[in-house]
Amino acid sequence: MAQKKMVTAITSMNEDFAQWYTDIVKKAELVDYSSVRGCMILRPYGYAIWENIQKTLDQKFKETGHENVGMPLFIPESLLQKEKDHVEGFAPEVAWVTMGGNEKLTERLCVRPTSETLFCEHYSHVIHSYRDLPKLYNQWCSVVRWEKTTRPFLRTMEFWWQEGHTMHETAQEAVEETERMLNIYADVCENFLAIPVIKGRKTDKEKFAGAEATYTIEAMMHDGKALQSGTSHYFGDGFAKAFDITFTGRDNTLQYPHQTSWGMSTRIIGAIIMTHGDDNGLVLPPAIAPIQTVIIPVAQHTPGVLDKAFELKERLSKIVRVKVDDSDNSPGWKFAEYEMKGVPLRLEIGPKDMEKNQCVIVRRDTREKYFVPLEDLETRLPELLKAVHDGLYQRALQNRTEKTTSASNMEEMEAATKDKNGFVKAMWCGDLACEEKLKEVCGVTSRCMPFEQEQIAQTCVCCGKPAKSMVIWGKAY
Amino acid sequence: MAQKKMVTAITSMNEDFAQWYTDIVKKAELVDYSSVRGCMILRPYGYAIWENIQKTLDQKFKETGHENVGMPLFIPESLLQKEKDHVEGFAPEVAWVTMGGNEKLTERLCVRPTSETLFCEHYSHVIHSYRDLPKLYNQWCSVVRWEKTTRPFLRTMEFWWQEGHTMHETAQEAVEETERMLNIYADVCENFLAIPVIKGRKTDKEKFAGAEATYTIEAMMHDGKALQSGTSHYFGDGFAKAFDITFTGRDNTLQYPHQTSWGMSTRIIGAIIMTHGDDNGLVLPPAIAPIQTVIIPVAQHTPGVLDKAFELKERLSKIVRVKVDDSDNSPGWKFAEYEMKGVPLRLEIGPKDMEKNQCVIVRRDTREKYFVPLEDLETRLPELLKAVHDGLYQRALQNRTEKTTSASNMEEMEAATKDKNGFVKAMWCGDLACEEKLKEVCGVTSRCMPFEQEQIAQTCVCCGKPAKSMVIWGKAY
Repeated sequence: MAQKKMVTAITSMNEDFAQWYTDIVKKAELVDYSSVRGCMILRPYGYAIWENIQKTLDQKFKETGHENVGMPLFIPESLLQKEKDHVEGFAPEVAWVTMGGNEKLTERLCVRPTSETLFCEHYSHVIHSYRDLPKLYNQWCSVVRWEKTTRPFLRTMEFWWQEGHTMHETAQEAVEETERMLNIYADVCENFLAIPVIKGRKTDKEKFAGAEATYTIEAMMHDGKALQSGTSHYFGDGFAKAFDITFTGRDNTLQYPHQTSWGMSTRIIGAIIMTHGDDNGLVLPPAIAPIQTVIIPVAQHTPGVLDKAFELKERLSKIVRVKVDDSDNSPGWKFAEYEMKGVPLRLEIGPKDMEKNQCVIVRRDTREKYFVPLEDLETRLPELLKAVHDGLYQRALQNRTEKTTSASNMEEMEAATKDKNGFVKAMWCGDLACEEKLKEVCGVTSRCMPFEQEQIAQTCVCCGKPAKSMVIWGKAY
Repeated sequence: MAQKKMVTAITSMNEDFAQWYTDIVKKAELVDYSSVRGCMILRPYGYAIWENIQKTLDQKFKETGHENVGMPLFIPESLLQKEKDHVEGFAPEVAWVTMGGNEKLTERLCVRPTSETLFCEHYSHVIHSYRDLPKLYNQWCSVVRWEKTTRPFLRTMEFWWQEGHTMHETAQEAVEETERMLNIYADVCENFLAIPVIKGRKTDKEKFAGAEATYTIEAMMHDGKALQSGTSHYFGDGFAKAFDITFTGRDNTLQYPHQTSWGMSTRIIGAIIMTHGDDNGLVLPPAIAPIQTVIIPVAQHTPGVLDKAFELKERLSKIVRVKVDDSDNSPGWKFAEYEMKGVPLRLEIGPKDMEKNQCVIVRRDTREKYFVPLEDLETRLPELLKAVHDGLYQRALQNRTEKTTSASNMEEMEAATKDKNGFVKAMWCGDLACEEKLKEVCGVTSRCMPFEQEQIAQTCVCCGKPAKSMVIWGKAY
């Protein structure tokens, strides 16, 4: 009677991966829908994951000298139009404010889809001398892109992100910055989110509107599809010229600064779900799990059990994010609930455990069970959390290894992509036509030209002309 | 030659308070303007102040059981219209999105001016039983109100804030929540921002659109004008009825939950400027100062000085937020720069100090100078920061005391308000007509009915009828 309704099973991932994803997003209480089409509500548990990712990134940004700022939500149409490639890329997918109160605006304002133009206008006010450089700014905010079809985290009209925008004295410094930030994204993905990524450069077709070069980290989801997990762009001085940003250089000449931008968004939560989740629900990497260890009292009405549970919580809260669930729900219900929510470790404590001065710890990822003496918890818990992290990373890496093939010609390419997902390594001549043909024939796009190149063949997988680089091809979210 | 241009003097506050304010906002590098009318850019220094205020508030919210969420930026027109008083209050001052990409929307979306309607729609999905209550949610975001005249921090079209929205089983619990959050705001103002505030209730004329009761903290600025610094609203079950939010109570009957909301915004930075600032610039309360102590090396080209400065920074960064300015600018330029930026303590270290194994510390608020042995810094710095905080608070309290009078009749009221600002305590009968007359004749509005009432007279200051409560009257930002 006092029970909340049982956590109902979710669709199996092998049966219907898309439905499995939607079930997790809902049952793990990450997101709710509203009457605002295409926008999601980040519920407390989902937002807490995002806050932990934010903290991790923000600390790394600050350690590398970046400062946060707050830019306006709106961009006047004339400002958006200043850089030609940029406006062509974004204008078709922005939301337009045309009325303020009861009055029609003389100029439409778009709701920012990204803020290069706003940062550039500001930079034109504050950059005058090489002494003002570099400017290393970042902003945490939400942006809006008018998407037709949406899915929570993966593609929503509004999403939360950070956007770094920097200006440098030289092209070399700017390029170094794009690499530095891409490395930070890769570090966070691999060492905090347990997601292995491939670092590389986007082809011209896939690069950011207005950029000279876009760098990316690409992750493989459990179903073999790719998810672009963070990007870093080098702009050269194109925006600087369009926005008339100049500085007096060390040689006393007037120069244009060199620009970068880089971003990671709530999309990464979709990557966490699809990399680590299983048929029992979400599986969270310990570093960003809002609850790292949940304490479940067993036979909690037996005198002393709840006291012990809260005593352990008090003790362990110094080293992990810990919660006791002392609700009236049964232990079985609670086990299922925290498995659904992906809590890395479950600590069970009951009268029998107390007699032996031990507890039971169960890993979310492998369901392995450990009997741990209570006095060892301070050393065992961090070890087990690390083991979960490492296990998740290895499992994801193995999945990627298993689902990565290579192809030397179109026959192999078609075989590698027909009715299946995965990464295919293949050589490319550099021509847009071949990229388009691979999309048409095999349904794949170029994910990136990895920094770590391999020589799969001498010739383009598509046209047979001399190859310029190896590309990772795949279907993508 | 290597010098940046000298920090130029700002307008004196006695000469032109409004211009003094604008000068500080600009010269302390808090804000920049853009081509987005009425919106401000929060520059790194301004944003860092906001981040520190955020951290302080967020910790207190979490300690009292609140959870952060992310709600959509847009509100469909039909959703905004669900609660009659609310839409009447806000519809005239919202920005409307009417186009998405190249298509006209079938329903306009407003950019949120506040999010009661979005929270209520979500609450209707997740509240079913008394076991689901209370819901204690908060959101950090920016909101937009279509203002005609704007001033940085004080009134901008877009501003940053937090908005808490909670639902409770009983009216009493909801009222207790509004008081709890008002007390948190008052605590943060007084003990972190050094701003004394008066807690009270708003009159019906001044309350929030759709609320049953609005509670407020009112601060007095240096010029004697009031600034509403945080508000907390009790809604009863009005929104719950409009949004059909019901739950099964302990007695198994269907009931409406009782609602609150509460917010504090970047406006509070305006209050910090106008409460503590002086003719040398900003003066920041230590608790939220991005730099609490700036180390200025004197004769920095003398061997050993810079090493010593950075050694001190390393040591002191364990206890305070500290920075060394080792730029080529002269010590005099640096003194002025960090005074302008309101850094609470300046630590000067030069060859003569090093000989004596001491340094010079200068307080920003009083300019008092202290010779401090280097080995005492760990104890002296926190003491001095506390002294700055206490000094700022006492100075602000004294200003408020000096500029607060009381009035028993209209003659006294006119005398107390003619050509001057300040708080006037006076009795009120409770009629809107008297409130409007006081506005018309004396230019004052009711700031609040303080929780701590005094019996200034028996009758209303305006109409002479029996008084219901004492009101603080004043001109306000």
